[in-house]
Amino acid sequence: MWQLHQFTLCPFTRKVRTLLNEKDVGYQLVREHPWERRDDFLHMNPAGQTPVMVEPNKGEVLIDSLAICEYFEETVDRAAMINGSSANRAEIRRLVTWFDTFFYRDVTQPLLEERMLNRLVHRTAPNASRLREAMKSSVGHLDYIDYLLDHRKWIAGATISLADLAAASQVSVADYLGGIDWTGHAHAKAWYSAFKSRRSFRPLLTERVSGIEPPSYYENPDF
Amino acid sequence: MWQLHQFTLCPFTRKVRTLLNEKDVGYQLVREHPWERRDDFLHMNPAGQTPVMVEPNKGEVLIDSLAICEYFEETVDRAAMINGSSANRAEIRRLVTWFDTFFYRDVTQPLLEERMLNRLVHRTAPNASRLREAMKSSVGHLDYIDYLLDHRKWIAGATISLADLAAASQVSVADYLGGIDWTGHAHAKAWYSAFKSRRSFRPLLTERVSGIEPPSYYENPDF
Repeated sequence: MWQLHQFTLCPFTRKVRTLLNEKDVGYQLVREHPWERRDDFLHMNPAGQTPVMVEPNKGEVLIDSLAICEYFEETVDRAAMINGSSANRAEIRRLVTWFDTFFYRDVTQPLLEERMLNRLVHRTAPNASRLREAMKSSVGHLDYIDYLLDHRKWIAGATISLADLAAASQVSVADYLGGIDWTGHAHAKAWYSAFKSRRSFRPLLTERVSGIEPPSYYENPDF
Repeated sequence: MWQLHQFTLCPFTRKVRTLLNEKDVGYQLVREHPWERRDDFLHMNPAGQTPVMVEPNKGEVLIDSLAICEYFEETVDRAAMINGSSANRAEIRRLVTWFDTFFYRDVTQPLLEERMLNRLVHRTAPNASRLREAMKSSVGHLDYIDYLLDHRKWIAGATISLADLAAASQVSVADYLGGIDWTGHAHAKAWYSAFKSRRSFRPLLTERVSGIEPPSYYENPDF
Protein backbone atom coordinates (compact mmCIF):
# COMPACT_ATOMS: atom_id res chain seq x y z
CA MET A 1 0.00 0.00 0.00
CA TRP A 2 1.12 3.58 -0.62
CA GLN A 3 2.65 5.33 2.37
CA LEU A 4 2.07 9.07 2.57
CA HIS A 5 4.68 11.02 4.57
CA GLN A 6 3.00 14.12 5.99
CA PHE A 7 2.02 16.24 8.98
CA THR A 8 -1.51 17.24 10.00
CA LEU A 9 -1.46 20.88 8.86
CA CYS A 10 0.53 20.43 5.62
CA PRO A 11 -1.71 22.09 2.99
CA PHE A 12 -0.01 20.30 0.07
CA THR A 13 -0.67 16.92 1.70
CA ARG A 14 -4.33 17.88 2.14
CA LYS A 15 -4.61 18.44 -1.61
CA VAL A 16 -3.06 15.02 -2.31
CA ARG A 17 -5.19 13.23 0.32
CA THR A 18 -8.41 14.75 -1.00
CA LEU A 19 -7.48 13.66 -4.53
CA LEU A 20 -6.65 10.10 -3.35
CA ASN A 21 -9.94 9.97 -1.40
CA GLU A 22 -11.92 11.20 -4.43
CA LYS A 23 -10.27 8.47 -6.50
CA ASP A 24 -10.63 5.77 -3.80
CA VAL A 25 -6.89 5.11 -3.70
CA GLY A 26 -5.80 3.54 -0.40
CA TYR A 27 -2.85 4.89 1.62
CA GLN A 28 -1.31 4.84 5.08
CA LEU A 29 -0.29 8.04 6.83
CA VAL A 30 3.30 8.29 8.09
CA ARG A 31 4.03 11.23 10.39
CA GLU A 32 6.92 13.41 9.20
CA HIS A 33 7.94 16.79 10.62
CA PRO A 34 9.98 18.33 7.79
CA TRP A 35 11.31 21.09 10.07
CA GLU A 36 13.27 18.41 11.98
CA ARG A 37 15.23 17.75 8.77
CA ARG A 38 15.75 14.03 9.49
CA ASP A 39 18.61 12.55 7.46
CA ASP A 40 16.47 9.66 6.21
CA PHE A 41 13.79 12.04 4.99
CA LEU A 42 16.27 14.38 3.29
CA HIS A 43 17.86 11.37 1.63
CA MET A 44 14.43 10.44 0.22
CA ASN A 45 13.55 14.02 -0.76
CA PRO A 46 16.43 16.53 -0.96
CA ALA A 47 13.84 19.34 -1.04
CA GLY A 48 12.93 18.35 2.54
CA GLN A 49 9.21 18.91 2.01
CA THR A 50 6.04 16.91 2.52
CA PRO A 51 4.19 15.17 0.97
CA VAL A 52 6.27 12.22 -0.23
CA MET A 53 4.62 8.95 -1.28
CA VAL A 54 6.36 5.59 -1.14
CA GLU A 55 5.13 2.21 -2.44
CA PRO A 56 7.59 -0.17 -0.74
CA ASN A 57 6.51 -3.25 -2.73
CA LYS A 58 7.14 -1.53 -6.06
CA GLY A 59 10.10 0.57 -4.90
CA GLU A 60 8.32 3.69 -6.20
CA VAL A 61 8.84 7.13 -4.64
CA LEU A 62 6.75 10.16 -5.64
CA ILE A 63 7.83 13.66 -4.63
CA ASP A 64 6.20 17.09 -4.99
CA SER A 65 2.45 17.47 -4.49
CA LEU A 66 1.68 18.51 -8.07
CA ALA A 67 3.76 15.68 -9.56
CA ILE A 68 1.91 13.27 -7.22
CA CYS A 69 -1.49 14.60 -8.31
CA GLU A 70 -0.57 14.38 -12.00
CA TYR A 71 0.63 10.79 -11.41
CA PHE A 72 -2.69 9.62 -9.94
CA GLU A 73 -4.62 11.64 -12.49
CA GLU A 74 -2.78 9.70 -15.22
CA THR A 75 -2.99 6.26 -13.62
CA VAL A 76 -6.50 6.26 -12.08
CA ASP A 77 -9.43 6.98 -14.38
CA ARG A 78 -12.03 7.55 -11.68
CA ALA A 79 -12.91 11.12 -10.62
CA ALA A 80 -10.84 13.07 -13.15
CA MET A 81 -9.71 16.34 -11.58
CA ILE A 82 -7.69 17.85 -14.46
CA ASN A 83 -10.43 17.62 -16.99
CA GLY A 84 -12.08 19.30 -19.97
CA SER A 85 -10.44 20.90 -23.00
CA SER A 86 -6.75 21.81 -23.08
CA ALA A 87 -7.72 25.41 -22.32
CA ASN A 88 -9.75 24.24 -19.26
CA ARG A 89 -6.83 22.11 -18.14
CA ALA A 90 -4.46 25.08 -18.45
CA GLU A 91 -6.86 27.17 -16.33
CA ILE A 92 -7.01 24.40 -13.69
CA ARG A 93 -3.22 24.21 -13.55
CA ARG A 94 -2.86 28.01 -13.42
CA LEU A 95 -5.12 28.12 -10.38
CA VAL A 96 -3.43 25.17 -8.66
CA THR A 97 -0.18 27.14 -8.93
CA TRP A 98 -1.99 30.27 -7.72
CA PHE A 99 -3.10 28.62 -4.47
CA ASP A 100 0.00 26.45 -3.96
CA THR A 101 2.35 29.37 -4.54
CA PHE A 102 0.69 32.71 -3.80
CA PHE A 103 -2.00 31.83 -1.25
CA TYR A 104 0.60 29.69 0.52
CA ARG A 105 3.29 32.39 0.46
CA ASP A 106 0.95 35.21 1.51
CA VAL A 107 -1.36 33.46 4.00
CA THR A 108 -0.74 29.80 4.92
CA GLN A 109 3.05 29.91 5.30
CA PRO A 110 3.22 32.91 7.66
CA LEU A 111 0.34 31.43 9.72
CA LEU A 112 2.05 28.04 9.93
CA GLU A 113 5.38 29.61 10.89
CA GLU A 114 4.00 32.10 13.40
CA ARG A 115 1.18 30.06 14.97
CA MET A 116 2.41 26.45 14.66
CA LEU A 117 6.22 26.37 14.39
CA ASN A 118 6.77 29.20 16.87
CA ARG A 119 4.53 27.43 19.38
CA LEU A 120 5.61 23.81 18.91
CA VAL A 121 9.27 24.20 18.00
CA HIS A 122 10.80 27.58 18.78
CA ARG A 123 8.54 28.27 21.80
CA THR A 124 8.49 31.97 21.02
CA ALA A 125 5.59 34.38 20.62
CA PRO A 126 4.25 34.97 17.12
CA ASN A 127 5.31 38.07 15.19
CA ALA A 128 2.19 40.26 15.39
CA SER A 129 2.95 42.46 12.39
CA ARG A 130 3.61 39.44 10.16
CA LEU A 131 0.28 37.96 11.28
CA ARG A 132 -1.51 41.25 10.51
CA GLU A 133 0.04 41.20 7.04
CA ALA A 134 -1.13 37.60 6.50
CA MET A 135 -4.69 38.49 7.61
CA LYS A 136 -4.72 41.38 5.16
CA SER A 137 -3.54 39.12 2.34
CA SER A 138 -6.16 36.57 3.36
CA VAL A 139 -8.93 39.11 2.69
CA GLY A 140 -7.49 39.84 -0.75
CA HIS A 141 -7.31 36.14 -1.59
CA LEU A 142 -10.90 35.54 -0.45
CA ASP A 143 -11.96 38.48 -2.63
CA TYR A 144 -10.32 36.72 -5.56
CA ILE A 145 -12.15 33.44 -4.75
CA ASP A 146 -15.41 35.44 -4.60
CA TYR A 147 -14.57 36.96 -7.99
CA LEU A 148 -13.86 33.56 -9.57
CA LEU A 149 -17.07 32.07 -8.14
CA ASP A 150 -19.10 35.01 -9.36
CA HIS A 151 -18.49 33.72 -12.89
CA ARG A 152 -18.28 29.97 -12.21
CA LYS A 153 -19.77 27.22 -10.08
CA TRP A 154 -16.34 25.89 -9.13
CA ILE A 155 -12.94 27.60 -8.86
CA ALA A 156 -11.73 26.75 -12.39
CA GLY A 157 -15.02 26.27 -14.26
CA ALA A 158 -18.27 24.32 -14.45
CA THR A 159 -17.02 21.20 -12.66
CA ILE A 160 -14.98 20.43 -9.56
CA SER A 161 -11.25 20.17 -10.30
CA LEU A 162 -7.82 20.02 -8.71
CA ALA A 163 -8.02 23.81 -8.40
CA ASP A 164 -10.85 23.41 -5.83
CA LEU A 165 -8.83 20.80 -3.95
CA ALA A 166 -5.77 23.09 -3.90
CA ALA A 167 -7.83 26.11 -2.79
CA ALA A 168 -9.78 24.25 -0.07
CA SER A 169 -6.57 22.71 1.26
CA GLN A 170 -4.89 26.09 1.73
CA VAL A 171 -8.09 27.68 3.07
CA SER A 172 -8.66 24.87 5.59
CA VAL A 173 -5.18 25.17 7.12
CA ALA A 174 -5.49 28.96 7.29
CA ASP A 175 -8.97 28.54 8.83
CA TYR A 176 -7.63 26.09 11.44
CA LEU A 177 -5.05 28.71 12.43
CA GLY A 178 -7.63 31.51 12.72
CA GLY A 179 -6.49 33.24 9.53
CA ILE A 180 -9.83 33.48 7.70
CA ASP A 181 -12.46 36.13 8.36
CA TRP A 182 -15.54 34.85 6.49
CA THR A 183 -17.50 38.10 6.90
CA GLY A 184 -18.47 39.59 3.55
CA HIS A 185 -17.28 36.61 1.46
CA ALA A 186 -20.62 35.00 0.60
CA HIS A 187 -19.51 33.15 -2.55
CA ALA A 188 -16.33 31.79 -0.97
CA LYS A 189 -18.26 30.75 2.14
CA ALA A 190 -20.97 28.88 0.18
CA TRP A 191 -18.31 27.11 -1.90
CA TYR A 192 -16.26 26.10 1.14
CA SER A 193 -19.39 25.00 3.00
CA ALA A 194 -20.26 22.62 0.14
CA PHE A 195 -16.66 21.42 0.05
CA LYS A 196 -16.63 20.66 3.80
CA SER A 197 -19.49 18.18 3.26
CA ARG A 198 -17.58 16.05 0.75
CA ARG A 199 -16.72 12.54 1.90
CA SER A 200 -13.20 13.02 0.52
CA PHE A 201 -12.53 16.08 2.68
CA ARG A 202 -14.52 15.63 5.93
CA PRO A 203 -12.06 13.18 7.57
CA LEU A 204 -9.24 15.74 7.32
CA LEU A 205 -11.26 18.26 9.33
CA THR A 206 -11.52 15.92 12.34
CA GLU A 207 -7.75 15.85 12.90
CA ARG A 208 -6.11 18.06 15.51
CA VAL A 209 -2.61 19.28 16.37
CA SER A 210 -2.05 18.92 20.10
CA GLY A 211 -1.83 22.31 21.79
CA ILE A 212 -3.45 24.25 18.92
CA GLU A 213 -7.23 24.43 18.82
CA PRO A 214 -9.09 25.54 15.68
CA PRO A 215 -12.06 27.95 15.90
CA SER A 216 -15.30 26.33 17.12
CA TYR A 217 -16.94 26.46 13.67
CA TYR A 218 -13.91 24.89 11.91
CA GLU A 219 -15.45 21.45 11.27
CA ASN A 220 -19.03 22.58 10.77
CA PRO A 221 -20.38 22.87 7.19
CA ASP A 222 -22.91 25.43 8.50
CA PHE A 223 -20.79 28.24 9.84
CA MET B 1 -0.06 33.59 -33.92
CA TRP B 2 0.69 33.13 -30.23
CA GLN B 3 2.08 36.20 -28.50
CA LEU B 4 4.52 35.52 -25.67
CA HIS B 5 4.76 38.27 -23.03
CA GLN B 6 8.25 38.14 -21.52
CA PHE B 7 11.53 39.84 -20.73
CA THR B 8 15.00 38.73 -21.86
CA LEU B 9 16.27 37.27 -18.59
CA CYS B 10 13.02 35.64 -17.40
CA PRO B 11 14.07 32.01 -16.70
CA PHE B 12 10.48 30.70 -16.86
CA THR B 13 10.02 32.22 -20.30
CA ARG B 14 13.26 30.56 -21.44
CA LYS B 15 11.81 27.17 -20.49
CA VAL B 16 8.63 27.87 -22.47
CA ARG B 17 10.51 29.25 -25.49
CA THR B 18 12.85 26.26 -25.63
CA LEU B 19 9.82 23.93 -25.50
CA LEU B 20 8.04 25.88 -28.27
CA ASN B 21 11.21 25.83 -30.38
CA GLU B 22 11.66 22.07 -29.86
CA LYS B 23 8.04 21.57 -30.96
CA ASP B 24 8.29 24.07 -33.87
CA VAL B 25 5.43 26.19 -32.55
CA GLY B 26 5.57 29.77 -33.85
CA TYR B 27 5.27 32.77 -31.53
CA GLN B 28 5.93 36.51 -31.38
CA LEU B 29 7.79 38.04 -28.46
CA VAL B 30 6.10 40.93 -26.62
CA ARG B 31 8.29 42.81 -24.15
CA GLU B 32 6.82 42.97 -20.64
CA HIS B 33 8.60 44.20 -17.50
CA PRO B 34 6.54 42.65 -14.68
CA TRP B 35 8.22 44.86 -12.07
CA GLU B 36 6.48 47.88 -13.65
CA ARG B 37 3.14 46.28 -12.68
CA ARG B 38 1.23 47.68 -15.67
CA ASP B 39 -2.52 47.68 -15.11
CA ASP B 40 -3.20 45.94 -18.42
CA PHE B 41 -0.75 43.17 -17.59
CA LEU B 42 -2.11 42.68 -14.05
CA HIS B 43 -5.58 42.54 -15.51
CA MET B 44 -4.46 39.72 -17.80
CA ASN B 45 -2.49 37.91 -15.08
CA PRO B 46 -3.28 38.86 -11.46
CA ALA B 47 -0.10 37.03 -10.41
CA GLY B 48 1.84 39.74 -12.28
CA GLN B 49 4.42 37.29 -13.65
CA THR B 50 5.83 36.37 -17.04
CA PRO B 51 5.40 34.35 -19.18
CA VAL B 52 1.84 34.87 -20.41
CA MET B 53 0.74 33.62 -23.84
CA VAL B 54 -2.11 35.12 -25.81
CA GLU B 55 -3.68 33.88 -29.06
CA PRO B 56 -5.75 36.94 -30.09
CA ASN B 57 -7.60 35.15 -32.89
CA LYS B 58 -8.86 32.42 -30.58
CA GLY B 59 -9.19 34.61 -27.49
CA GLU B 60 -7.05 32.14 -25.55
CA VAL B 61 -4.81 33.22 -22.66
CA LEU B 62 -2.31 30.85 -21.01
CA ILE B 63 -0.74 31.75 -17.67
CA ASP B 64 1.99 30.10 -15.55
CA SER B 65 5.00 28.53 -17.23
CA LEU B 66 4.24 24.96 -16.15
CA ALA B 67 0.59 25.19 -17.22
CA ILE B 68 1.81 26.56 -20.57
CA CYS B 69 4.29 23.69 -21.02
CA GLU B 70 1.64 21.08 -20.11
CA TYR B 71 -0.75 22.73 -22.63
CA PHE B 72 1.67 22.43 -25.55
CA GLU B 73 2.74 18.97 -24.41
CA GLU B 74 -0.91 17.90 -24.65
CA THR B 75 -1.73 19.65 -27.91
CA VAL B 76 1.47 19.15 -29.97
CA ASP B 77 2.67 15.57 -30.46
CA ARG B 78 6.14 16.44 -31.75
CA ALA B 79 9.15 16.35 -29.39
CA ALA B 80 7.42 14.99 -26.26
CA MET B 81 9.15 16.43 -23.20
CA ILE B 82 7.06 14.84 -20.41
CA ASN B 83 7.53 11.31 -21.60
CA GLY B 84 8.00 7.68 -20.53
CA SER B 85 6.15 5.74 -17.83
CA SER B 86 4.05 7.45 -15.18
CA ALA B 87 6.97 7.06 -12.77
CA ASN B 88 9.31 8.76 -15.29
CA ARG B 89 6.79 11.55 -15.78
CA ALA B 90 6.55 12.06 -12.02
CA GLU B 91 10.36 12.30 -11.83
CA ILE B 92 10.39 14.86 -14.68
CA ARG B 93 7.73 16.98 -12.93
CA ARG B 94 9.52 16.70 -9.56
CA LEU B 95 12.70 18.09 -11.14
CA VAL B 96 10.89 20.85 -13.04
CA THR B 97 9.54 22.01 -9.67
CA TRP B 98 13.01 21.63 -8.17
CA PHE B 99 14.58 24.04 -10.66
CA ASP B 100 11.60 26.40 -11.00
CA THR B 101 11.19 26.70 -7.24
CA PHE B 102 14.43 25.97 -5.39
CA PHE B 103 17.13 26.86 -7.93
CA TYR B 104 15.15 30.02 -8.70
CA ARG B 105 14.66 30.96 -5.03
CA ASP B 106 18.28 30.23 -4.03
CA VAL B 107 20.21 31.39 -7.11
CA THR B 108 18.38 33.02 -10.02
CA GLN B 109 16.02 35.28 -8.06
CA PRO B 110 18.67 36.93 -5.85
CA LEU B 111 20.94 37.39 -8.90
CA LEU B 112 18.11 38.95 -10.93
CA GLU B 113 17.14 41.25 -8.07
CA GLU B 114 20.66 42.30 -7.10
CA ARG B 115 22.34 42.46 -10.52
CA MET B 116 19.47 43.35 -12.88
CA LEU B 117 16.67 45.12 -10.96
CA ASN B 118 19.03 47.07 -8.70
CA ARG B 119 20.93 48.27 -11.76
CA LEU B 120 18.10 48.98 -14.18
CA VAL B 121 15.32 50.05 -11.84
CA HIS B 122 16.42 50.99 -8.34
CA ARG B 123 19.87 52.26 -9.42
CA THR B 124 21.44 51.07 -6.18
CA ALA B 125 24.47 48.87 -5.56
CA PRO B 126 23.90 45.13 -5.16
CA ASN B 127 23.77 43.61 -1.68
CA ALA B 128 27.15 41.84 -1.46
CA SER B 129 26.24 39.39 1.28
CA ARG B 130 23.08 38.29 -0.56
CA LEU B 131 25.17 37.72 -3.70
CA ARG B 132 27.71 35.66 -1.71
CA GLU B 133 24.84 33.55 -0.37
CA ALA B 134 23.50 33.01 -3.92
CA MET B 135 26.96 31.98 -5.16
CA LYS B 136 27.25 29.46 -2.32
CA SER B 137 23.82 28.04 -3.16
CA SER B 138 24.80 27.91 -6.82
CA VAL B 139 27.69 25.54 -5.99
CA GLY B 140 25.30 23.28 -4.05
CA HIS B 141 22.85 23.20 -6.93
CA LEU B 142 25.58 22.40 -9.48
CA ASP B 143 26.72 19.58 -7.16
CA TYR B 144 23.17 18.21 -7.33
CA ILE B 145 23.15 18.43 -11.16
CA ASP B 146 26.50 16.57 -11.16
CA TYR B 147 24.97 13.93 -8.88
CA LEU B 148 21.93 13.47 -11.13
CA LEU B 149 24.10 13.22 -14.26
CA ASP B 150 26.38 10.71 -12.59
CA HIS B 151 23.47 8.24 -12.80
CA ARG B 152 21.75 9.46 -15.96
CA LYS B 153 22.45 10.89 -19.40
CA TRP B 154 19.88 13.67 -18.92
CA ILE B 155 18.57 15.41 -15.80
CA ALA B 156 15.50 13.18 -15.32
CA GLY B 157 16.56 9.97 -17.09
CA ALA B 158 17.68 8.42 -20.35
CA THR B 159 16.12 11.04 -22.65
CA ILE B 160 15.91 14.81 -22.77
CA SER B 161 12.83 16.16 -20.98
CA LEU B 162 11.21 19.29 -19.63
CA ALA B 163 13.48 18.90 -16.58
CA ASP B 164 16.52 19.67 -18.78
CA LEU B 165 14.75 22.68 -20.26
CA ALA B 166 13.86 23.96 -16.78
CA ALA B 167 17.39 23.39 -15.48
CA ALA B 168 19.17 24.94 -18.48
CA SER B 169 16.85 27.97 -18.38
CA GLN B 170 17.68 28.74 -14.75
CA VAL B 171 21.38 27.97 -15.26
CA SER B 172 21.61 30.20 -18.35
CA VAL B 173 20.16 33.25 -16.57
CA ALA B 174 22.42 32.68 -13.56
CA ASP B 175 25.38 32.25 -15.95
CA TYR B 176 24.53 35.50 -17.77
CA LEU B 177 24.63 37.29 -14.41
CA GLY B 178 27.99 35.78 -13.42
CA GLY B 179 26.48 33.43 -10.84
CA ILE B 180 27.95 30.13 -12.04
CA ASP B 181 31.47 28.93 -11.26
CA TRP B 182 31.95 25.93 -13.58
CA THR B 183 35.19 24.79 -11.91
CA GLY B 184 34.91 21.25 -10.58
CA HIS B 185 31.50 20.54 -12.14
CA ALA B 186 32.51 18.31 -15.07
CA HIS B 187 29.17 16.51 -15.53
CA ALA B 188 27.09 19.68 -15.32
CA LYS B 189 29.47 21.45 -17.69
CA ALA B 190 29.37 18.68 -20.32
CA TRP B 191 25.55 18.56 -20.11
CA TYR B 192 25.19 22.34 -20.43
CA SER B 193 27.71 22.46 -23.26
CA ALA B 194 25.61 19.94 -25.24
CA PHE B 195 22.47 21.90 -24.39
CA LYS B 196 23.98 25.17 -25.64
CA SER B 197 24.38 23.62 -29.09
CA ARG B 198 20.69 22.80 -29.50
CA ARG B 199 18.87 24.73 -32.22
CA SER B 200 15.99 25.33 -29.79
CA PHE B 201 18.22 27.04 -27.25
CA ARG B 202 21.02 28.81 -29.18
CA PRO B 203 18.91 31.83 -30.26
CA LEU B 204 18.17 32.70 -26.61
CA LEU B 205 21.89 32.98 -25.86
CA THR B 206 22.39 35.71 -28.46
CA GLU B 207 20.04 38.16 -26.70
CA ARG B 208 21.42 40.90 -24.46
CA VAL B 209 20.10 43.26 -21.78
CA SER B 210 21.44 46.73 -22.41
CA GLY B 211 23.90 47.78 -19.72
CA ILE B 212 24.54 44.25 -18.43
CA GLU B 213 27.18 42.18 -20.19
CA PRO B 214 27.42 38.41 -19.69
CA PRO B 215 30.82 36.70 -19.21
CA SER B 216 32.81 36.29 -22.44
CA TYR B 217 32.23 32.50 -22.58
CA TYR B 218 28.44 32.82 -22.06
CA GLU B 219 27.39 31.99 -25.63
CA ASN B 220 30.18 29.54 -26.41
CA PRO B 221 29.44 25.77 -26.27
CA ASP B 222 33.18 25.20 -25.61
CA PHE B 223 33.86 27.01 -22.38
